[in-house]
Amino acid sequence: MARPSRYARKRRNTPGSPPGRWVADPAASETRLHTIRYAPDSVIETDGLETGGGGTAWLNIDGLRDQAQLARIAETFGLHPLAMEDVVNLHQRPKAEDYRDHLFVVLRMPRPRAEGFSTEQVSLFLGRDHVLTFQEDPGDVFDPVRARLRNPQSPIRGRGADYLAYALIDAITDAYFPVLEAMGERIEELEDAVVSRADPDQIARIHAIKHDLRTIRSALWPLRDLMSALLRDDSGRFSEQTRLYLRDCHDHTFQLIDMVETYREIVSGLVDIHLSTQANQTNEVMRVLTLIATVFIPLTFVVGVYGMNFDVMPELHWRWGYPVVMALMGAIAVGLALWFRHKGWLGRSRR
Amino acid sequence: MARPSRYARKRRNTPGSPPGRWVADPAASETRLHTIRYAPDSVIETDGLETGGGGTAWLNIDGLRDQAQLARIAETFGLHPLAMEDVVNLHQRPKAEDYRDHLFVVLRMPRPRAEGFSTEQVSLFLGRDHVLTFQEDPGDVFDPVRARLRNPQSPIRGRGADYLAYALIDAITDAYFPVLEAMGERIEELEDAVVSRADPDQIARIHAIKHDLRTIRSALWPLRDLMSALLRDDSGRFSEQTRLYLRDCHDHTFQLIDMVETYREIVSGLVDIHLSTQANQTNEVMRVLTLIATVFIPLTFVVGVYGMNFDVMPELHWRWGYPVVMALMGAIAVGLALWFRHKGWLGRSRR
Amino acid sequence: MARPSRYARKRRNTPGSPPGRWVADPAASETRLHTIRYAPDSVIETDGLETGGGGTAWLNIDGLRDQAQLARIAETFGLHPLAMEDVVNLHQRPKAEDYRDHLFVVLRMPRPRAEGFSTEQVSLFLGRDHVLTFQEDPGDVFDPVRARLRNPQSPIRGRGADYLAYALIDAITDAYFPVLEAMGERIEELEDAVVSRADPDQIARIHAIKHDLRTIRSALWPLRDLMSALLRDDSGRFSEQTRLYLRDCHDHTFQLIDMVETYREIVSGLVDIHLSTQANQTNEVMRVLTLIATVFIPLTFVVGVYGMNFDVMPELHWRWGYPVVMALMGAIAVGLALWFRHKGWLGRSRR
Amino acid sequence: MARPSRYARKRRNTPGSPPGRWVADPAASETRLHTIRYAPDSVIETDGLETGGGGTAWLNIDGLRDQAQLARIAETFGLHPLAMEDVVNLHQRPKAEDYRDHLFVVLRMPRPRAEGFSTEQVSLFLGRDHVLTFQEDPGDVFDPVRARLRNPQSPIRGRGADYLAYALIDAITDAYFPVLEAMGERIEELEDAVVSRADPDQIARIHAIKHDLRTIRSALWPLRDLMSALLRDDSGRFSEQTRLYLRDCHDHTFQLIDMVETYREIVSGLVDIHLSTQANQTNEVMRVLTLIATVFIPLTFVVGVYGMNFDVMPELHWRWGYPVVMALMGAIAVGLALWFRHKGWLGRSRR
Amino acid sequence: MARPSRYARKRRNTPGSPPGRWVADPAASETRLHTIRYAPDSVIETDGLETGGGGTAWLNIDGLRDQAQLARIAETFGLHPLAMEDVVNLHQRPKAEDYRDHLFVVLRMPRPRAEGFSTEQVSLFLGRDHVLTFQEDPGDVFDPVRARLRNPQSPIRGRGADYLAYALIDAITDAYFPVLEAMGERIEELEDAVVSRADPDQIARIHAIKHDLRTIRSALWPLRDLMSALLRDDSGRFSEQTRLYLRDCHDHTFQLIDMVETYREIVSGLVDIHLSTQANQTNEVMRVLTLIATVFIPLTFVVGVYGMNFDVMPELHWRWGYPVVMALMGAIAVGLALWFRHKGWLGRSRR
Repeated sequence: MARPSRYARKRRNTPGSPPGRWVADPAASETRLHTIRYAPDSVIETDGLETGGGGTAWLNIDGLRDQAQLARIAETFGLHPLAMEDVVNLHQRPKAEDYRDHLFVVLRMPRPRAEGFSTEQVSLFLGRDHVLTFQEDPGDVFDPVRARLRNPQSPIRGRGADYLAYALIDAITDAYFPVLEAMGERIEELEDAVVSRADPDQIARIHAIKHDLRTIRSALWPLRDLMSALLRDDSGRFSEQTRLYLRDCHDHTFQLIDMVETYREIVSGLVDIHLSTQANQTNEVMRVLTLIATVFIPLTFVVGVYGMNFDVMPELHWRWGYPVVMALMGAIAVGLALWFRHKGWLGRSRR
Repeated sequence: MARPSRYARKRRNTPGSPPGRWVADPAASETRLHTIRYAPDSVIETDGLETGGGGTAWLNIDGLRDQAQLARIAETFGLHPLAMEDVVNLHQRPKAEDYRDHLFVVLRMPRPRAEGFSTEQVSLFLGRDHVLTFQEDPGDVFDPVRARLRNPQSPIRGRGADYLAYALIDAITDAYFPVLEAMGERIEELEDAVVSRADPDQIARIHAIKHDLRTIRSALWPLRDLMSALLRDDSGRFSEQTRLYLRDCHDHTFQLIDMVETYREIVSGLVDIHLSTQANQTNEVMRVLTLIATVFIPLTFVVGVYGMNFDVMPELHWRWGYPVVMALMGAIAVGLALWFRHKGWLGRSRR
Repeated sequence: MARPSRYARKRRNTPGSPPGRWVADPAASETRLHTIRYAPDSVIETDGLETGGGGTAWLNIDGLRDQAQLARIAETFGLHPLAMEDVVNLHQRPKAEDYRDHLFVVLRMPRPRAEGFSTEQVSLFLGRDHVLTFQEDPGDVFDPVRARLRNPQSPIRGRGADYLAYALIDAITDAYFPVLEAMGERIEELEDAVVSRADPDQIARIHAIKHDLRTIRSALWPLRDLMSALLRDDSGRFSEQTRLYLRDCHDHTFQLIDMVETYREIVSGLVDIHLSTQANQTNEVMRVLTLIATVFIPLTFVVGVYGMNFDVMPELHWRWGYPVVMALMGAIAVGLALWFRHKGWLGRSRR
Repeated sequence: MARPSRYARKRRNTPGSPPGRWVADPAASETRLHTIRYAPDSVIETDGLETGGGGTAWLNIDGLRDQAQLARIAETFGLHPLAMEDVVNLHQRPKAEDYRDHLFVVLRMPRPRAEGFSTEQVSLFLGRDHVLTFQEDPGDVFDPVRARLRNPQSPIRGRGADYLAYALIDAITDAYFPVLEAMGERIEELEDAVVSRADPDQIARIHAIKHDLRTIRSALWPLRDLMSALLRDDSGRFSEQTRLYLRDCHDHTFQLIDMVETYREIVSGLVDIHLSTQANQTNEVMRVLTLIATVFIPLTFVVGVYGMNFDVMPELHWRWGYPVVMALMGAIAVGLALWFRHKGWLGRSRR
Repeated sequence: MARPSRYARKRRNTPGSPPGRWVADPAASETRLHTIRYAPDSVIETDGLETGGGGTAWLNIDGLRDQAQLARIAETFGLHPLAMEDVVNLHQRPKAEDYRDHLFVVLRMPRPRAEGFSTEQVSLFLGRDHVLTFQEDPGDVFDPVRARLRNPQSPIRGRGADYLAYALIDAITDAYFPVLEAMGERIEELEDAVVSRADPDQIARIHAIKHDLRTIRSALWPLRDLMSALLRDDSGRFSEQTRLYLRDCHDHTFQLIDMVETYREIVSGLVDIHLSTQANQTNEVMRVLTLIATVFIPLTFVVGVYGMNFDVMPELHWRWGYPVVMALMGAIAVGLALWFRHKGWLGRSRR
């Protein structure tokens, strides 16, 4: 099938190939570099790989197609080949790894889509006075951070690379809130539909939401572990003050996970509701069938009796035979209807 | 939809905005301040922000609309911006955070509603000689504590701010008991209904109770962790004696969680009962249909036979043909009825 | 409703009231005190509060109505108000708390009832040379311990208060075995019923047993934790030898929990069996309906054909038309019956 | 009921009776003692209680009826009364307890039965130069160990009591493999049956297998914990070399638990398969009923129309009326059949 | 049955037999030895057991039939008998054990099959300057490693035995990715089938996939623990640099486990979808039956009425009696059809 695979993530590397021999994907987005170098009183933005100058530098790379350029960046900053392998092999789980010169952090940035959302891998290297970020595609959630860097009044200018790294991680974490809010609305809509009527496609919609919740969950749980690891980290990469901010961000991941777990429980409950509503609809159909059949089957028997051709059937020759039989059958029908009403099968609305 | 969202909690902050830049919500309740300053032999209540004087002060702020006033309070007491951000951003999970000058505690206070309940965020700062509480709306569960503070005999007067903080936390914890008792009664009513008859709306009611239990549970589990953290805390904020009281309060959270978990299990079981009762009702309808159809379908066949127009049908001309056939059909009907009774489908009440 | 609440446990204290201000329940059983003071060579039993004399004393209080008397006892032995609050507020979870002068242990003593069982709160204070026990109602499982205390040969006389406390805890732990054995028998009976036939009340009975298992479980898990805590305790309250006995008792709680967890799994499985048996019964009814309808509906069509009044219907005038049609219908019926037997719907007993 | 209780294990001791006062069960198997005393170059077997002589001694006691003899053994070797209480009270969980002079280990030895298996309690005391084993009944899995002891070449002769204890524990652990293999075969058979056809007794068979898996599981999990405890033990009871063997045995318990947990998951899945197959069978019956009824009910109406006795029914007098109506009905029947085939209800085999 | 057992793994050793007495399986594949001895500037490959020469040696043994040859290898390299027992007894769980001279690692290598996959046991011994691998059958995933060894430029040549061991473990870990990708495709296909139509064999296919997921999971979880153990290992077997690579490999096991757990959840959800789709199909059949029966049963009654043979039935003699009755019945039919459409049972497509 030409359709992209939903569940099977492709790894590009051949199993058994040497580790740390990373290869850029020629089908990836075009590689574009953007550098912001800032100090409390200055900010310089360039599109080239420029390492000179003081202050703190943030190099953001969009698109991972250009092997040569990526290699040059890796060499310039001394990025470890194993880390670079993770940068170009997408579908990493969020994680933080310490490579002496750099702290290497992999994150998943959510992107809202028409129906649901997708996640994009963002790889972040935190060095002494620089932060490098590698993104799959152009377009990200970092614009508010860029605006703060360009704003001479913003305190972010006076803080180091560790604070910038925090700010970026925080922007990604916060980007999950609108995604989860949209998810919550989808769940509410589905819940209203499921409670009011069982349609065959509902179970597939429940399944689709479950899948999205699994995706978001598999991004958030490791994110939380990653944050815990950064908080416990005592290598001095993060200043005491930045750590306070990280704790705040860590707390946000807890809120997000709470929301996801709550949604998961709600959606699990919807399956029960759907099955019960489905059973109710079957019951309603059954009840109608039973009522009709139960009333008319005996009456049909009665009219059959008087359709028999026996020579000797005295009732047939009575003057009032026909109206009496019709009245009798009317009485039977009324009696059955009353009995059904008594049993609660008739007249009381079940929906 | 104009209807408020059930599941998606809104965050007011834009993702990526600088942390610690908190903004009061203009749609919140009006901000009102009330201060109780007490010592073993005196108590002074004012509605202004007054910091002078000895003893212990409890500043309670209802309503979080007035940015200027909140900022003045934050500045006066040196409250950390990150903590203030949590104060105005409702929907925090219960938690305790240490900010050097203050212990910052977020709690969720339950409020009974017509059907079920809601929770309101209460933020508490414990300083050396003062306690600040921030509430979403006027009206709280602290009146008994206020009464004790005003009572010259009450030992609370002679104890410090740590004991006051404990007393407030304890009041909030205890406020969950009546909420859970009301929940227990709702569950019992629903259980009685579910056992006696399956109605289509029961599964929705079960779903609603599950939702309420989830809400209460997501307030109680972090509350328990918070209490454990306070008990383990060795920063000297809580005196040895107050700690004994905290342990008691901690024990109450265990009781509450026990109740919630028990309710959750009971409510899960109700789904099974509902589905089984529903299946029984279908069975009953089916059985009636089967009985009627099984008795009358063969008889209708018999009368059909004698309604055929063959020239040569000797039975039709027998003198006793008609009564014999009617008796025969009566016998068939009685035989089938006896067989059904033998199979247990007739005559034994199934409900 | 006048009926006592099944799930909602009532707390008597008003939320927010000062802690450690305990109030006896006027509706509780009458307070009666019994003291056994023993030494290796003597035993004295009195009904008064008598503190003089050497050896070890066991004060047992039945009924918690008399505030004055309880207050006198609490004062005499220096019982902490927070502990006394737990003594008179029933529905505590089993727990052990250390109050400098006393180890305070709350236990739940099982009492068999006509159907199932209930639990009663027993509060135990272990002091240097005395043990106090507070019970809700007269009647307990301690008679074997009393008999051993009265027996001059029994080694219990020569051991201290710690051993007495162990003996009482052990008596309560052991009292769960007969309760669980009775539960096991109820489960077996229900299992036999569920396997052989699905009755609508079975799911309610399963639900009731689940409830009892939850009750017993919520008493046993904290009991086990309590025992673990006593075993880990290194305050020297328990002698090395008594600790060996406690380990044995701890082991019994493991056995009890094993039994409870096994029962829970069995009972969960019964729901599946019930639903499957229910579905089988529906199937059987359906099959009968289908057989009857499938055989007779075509035949009824055939006889209907020859009941038509067309002028030109040659078969009607054939000499052997009637017997041939009857034979043909017999053949159809036999053919269908054989086909049903082939499909396995007829003749093979399904139960 | 005379039938032995399936779930309720009976304890013989009265609750509250003094601990360590063990009583042999008069209904138990006859007590028989067998001693093997061995050294690298000698082996002596006797049936008496003989303590003299060097080397290592293994005393195996089958049957726990003879209180006097058991008491003599306990006294001779200084076995702790609490341990002896566990020896005669069967239904202990596997566990290891340290009693200064002895390591006391309780194990459960599996015994294959016609259908399934049962477990028997084996109590083992490991002393400095002797091992005592107490079994419920004669017959065990230790014969290969005995053969190795009698074999002058076997290295077991030269190793101490700790190695013998290991060998016995290993023999019991290994005895679970054939039991689980038989279980696996039962599960496969059941799985084949469940997939091909839903019979009402299958759910009971699934339930029975679940029960057996629970039994085996409740023996294996504590066995694994016991092994971990022995491996962590640093009292010097086990030599460095024996510990290596114990690690191997520990690893076997992991394999066994893996198998049990896998079986449990498989069996859980069988319930789903059974319910789905059951539903399919109902569907098939329903489909047949619907086909027959849907084809013949309209036709029966048609023939009823021409059975009416109106004076003016022109069709009845047409020459080709009868064959035209028959042909029309044939066309209706064929049309419905084609429509059913189109809907997939006819002609495609569903099984 | 001749069919190989699906669940019951056979152990060849008799329970109770002496440990470390390993026996090669005569039914295993033929034993073939291949040695690669390499140094930064040389590589020598032989098919014999040759121990001389410097550098690092990798001995790979395919097939475990030849007891004598295996014994010779074990003796030459001083492999522990307990480890050799695990080598020849297949079905070990992945694990790492330290035997002073060697680190012994058991792994399970996946092999894709026509439908699904199987796993083969690979045992690896890591010594100071050599690695031994034992495989069940010829054919493995190590060819890329061999190619790197033969390539003079490859850095693997200059690294020690620890790096070779890592490279082999990494090759096996990576081999799970294509297996899981194939699994993902099977799940997608099944999901599409289940959503669109309920076929009776789907539940069996779900069951089969669950079984495969269980198999792969029981290989991956211990693999992850093994990797964690190697990473924590501080015996100096792995150089600092190799450890960095091991961390990367460890990370891959996390990714694999994530995928497996996600698949398990998806497949669990498919059971719900299948049951719901099945219920929908039953509903559709029921609805058709109900429509037909409900329309025609009353009409059949009406025509029966006018088939009665009463002498006095005025309608029969009316000139327009027949067309009026026919029109009446048409009106009834249309009325019922409109009511059904109103109820949503007719005309709206349900799939």
